Amino acid sequence: MRNLKLTIQYNGQNYCGWQKQPDSLGIQGTIEKAIYDITREEVKITGSGRTDAGVHALGQVANFKTSSNIPASKMPNALNAKLPKDISIIDCIEVDEDFHSRYSSKKKRYRYLIHNSPYRNPIYKDISYHVKYDLDFEKMCKEAKSLIGEYDFKGFMSSGSSVKDTIRTIYDITLTKEDGLIVMEVEGNGFLYNMVRIIAGTLVDIGRGRITKNLEEVIKSKNRGECGHTAPAHGLFLKKVDY
Amino acid sequence: MRNLKLTIQYNGQNYCGWQKQPDSLGIQGTIEKAIYDITREEVKITGSGRTDAGVHALGQVANFKTSSNIPASKMPNALNAKLPKDISIIDCIEVDEDFHSRYSSKKKRYRYLIHNSPYRNPIYKDISYHVKYDLDFEKMCKEAKSLIGEYDFKGFMSSGSSVKDTIRTIYDITLTKEDGLIVMEVEGNGFLYNMVRIIAGTLVDIGRGRITKNLEEVIKSKNRGECGHTAPAHGLFLKKVDY
Repeated sequence: MRNLKLTIQYNGQNYCGWQKQPDSLGIQGTIEKAIYDITREEVKITGSGRTDAGVHALGQVANFKTSSNIPASKMPNALNAKLPKDISIIDCIEVDEDFHSRYSSKKKRYRYLIHNSPYRNPIYKDISYHVKYDLDFEKMCKEAKSLIGEYDFKGFMSSGSSVKDTIRTIYDITLTKEDGLIVMEVEGNGFLYNMVRIIAGTLVDIGRGRITKNLEEVIKSKNRGECGHTAPAHGLFLKKVDY
Repeated sequence: MRNLKLTIQYNGQNYCGWQKQPDSLGIQGTIEKAIYDITREEVKITGSGRTDAGVHALGQVANFKTSSNIPASKMPNALNAKLPKDISIIDCIEVDEDFHSRYSSKKKRYRYLIHNSPYRNPIYKDISYHVKYDLDFEKMCKEAKSLIGEYDFKGFMSSGSSVKDTIRTIYDITLTKEDGLIVMEVEGNGFLYNMVRIIAGTLVDIGRGRITKNLEEVIKSKNRGECGHTAPAHGLFLKKVDY
C-alpha cells in the first residue's frame, strides 16, 4: 500500500469541522468521499489534528493508505475536480509507510485574524474576528512575547480535553497591523484544545484593558479563569504543519 | 446644506459596479437608498470615481449634500443598519461645501491580488485573480519600477474611454508575495479606464514570459496591443483616496 500525504486548504465556514459528525461529513469525510470517487477505495484519512467547526486551513496535512496507482502529482487536480470549491488539495506526495500526519508532526503554525474597527468589514467579515473596541496594539505586541518558550499552558486549554501533559513550547508569535486588520501568527510544537483561540482572546482582553496582569503572570497562574475569552473559530487558520 | 464625506468599503462581487444601471442600483444607488431610509431625502452621492462590476473597495470616498441634522459621527452606524452586509460605511465627516469627491482628489491607491498557484485557494477565490502558470516574481518586481514617474499611459487604457489627456503620474508601486498570494499596490494622481487591471495583466504577462520587452519600452509604445491583458475585476480593490 502507498502512503500519500496531502496538503489541504479549506474555508471552514460551512463545515462542522475536520471530523465527521453523525449528520455531517466534515472536511475529513468530504475528502474521503472524493478519494472514493476517483479510486473506489473506502479509505480513512488521518489529519495532523482536528480543526473545530468554522476554522479554516491554509496548510492542513493528512495522509492515507491506498493501493491506487494514480501518480501523486495527479492527485490534487483529480481530487479538486470532485471536491466542493471551499476545499482545495494543494499538494500530494508519497511518503514512508510509517509517516503519520499527527504523530510525526514537529511544529504547527496558526494564523488568527482580528478586524479592529467600530465598523464591519465586508471583505474580511467571514474570516476575521470583529473587535469593535479600541485595542492597544503596542501593548498586545509587547505582552505576546511572554508566550515564547516552554511553559505549562494549562490555563490556555478549554475544558473537555482529556490531555494530561499541558506543557508546550511556543517558538514564535508575531502581530502585524494594517488598515485595522491585525494578523497574529503563532508557532509551536503543539497546541492544547482551543489554545490559539484563547491566546487570541487573551491578547484582545489585554489590548482592551480587561486583563491588567502581565501575560507572564497569567501563564504562571495555570488558571483558565485568569486568561481571556476564547476568540471565535472563524478568525483561525491552520497555516502550516512541519515534519 | 451640509456636505458629508463618506468613506466606504464594499465587496463588489454581487454588484454591477459603483454606478446605477437601468435594472440595478449599483453600490451608489444602494447607499442613496440607505440615506433615503434614514433622512427621507432623495440625494445624489458623488463617488471619487466609478468602480466596475466586481471591483471591491477598502476606502472608496463619496460625498452628498443634505439638510438632515444627524451628526456625522452617527452616520456610519445609522447607514450600516440599513445597508446590506457587503457594504460598510467606515467614516463620515462634514466637509466644506465645495468639496467634491472626484474633482478634489489628489491621489488614489489601488490594491490588486494575484493568487499564483496551480490550485485554487478556497479563502481568496472571490477576491483574487487565480494565475495557474509559474510567474517570475523577481522579474515582475524589477519591471514594475519602470511605471514610477510621469508618463503617457495611453497603452494602458481600455477602448471606450473618452479621456483625451492620457498623461498620469505613478508615485509608487510595490509587489509582495506570501504563500502564493501576490499583493500589488499602486498609487498615482489618477488612473485611466482599466489602467490598474492592465498594469496587473501586463506584469502577469511579463512574469509568465509572454511579454519579453522591457516595461519601459511597452510604456513608450503607447500601444494597447503591446501591453498585457486586462486582469479580472474581482482581484481589484480601491484602497484609498487622498485629498
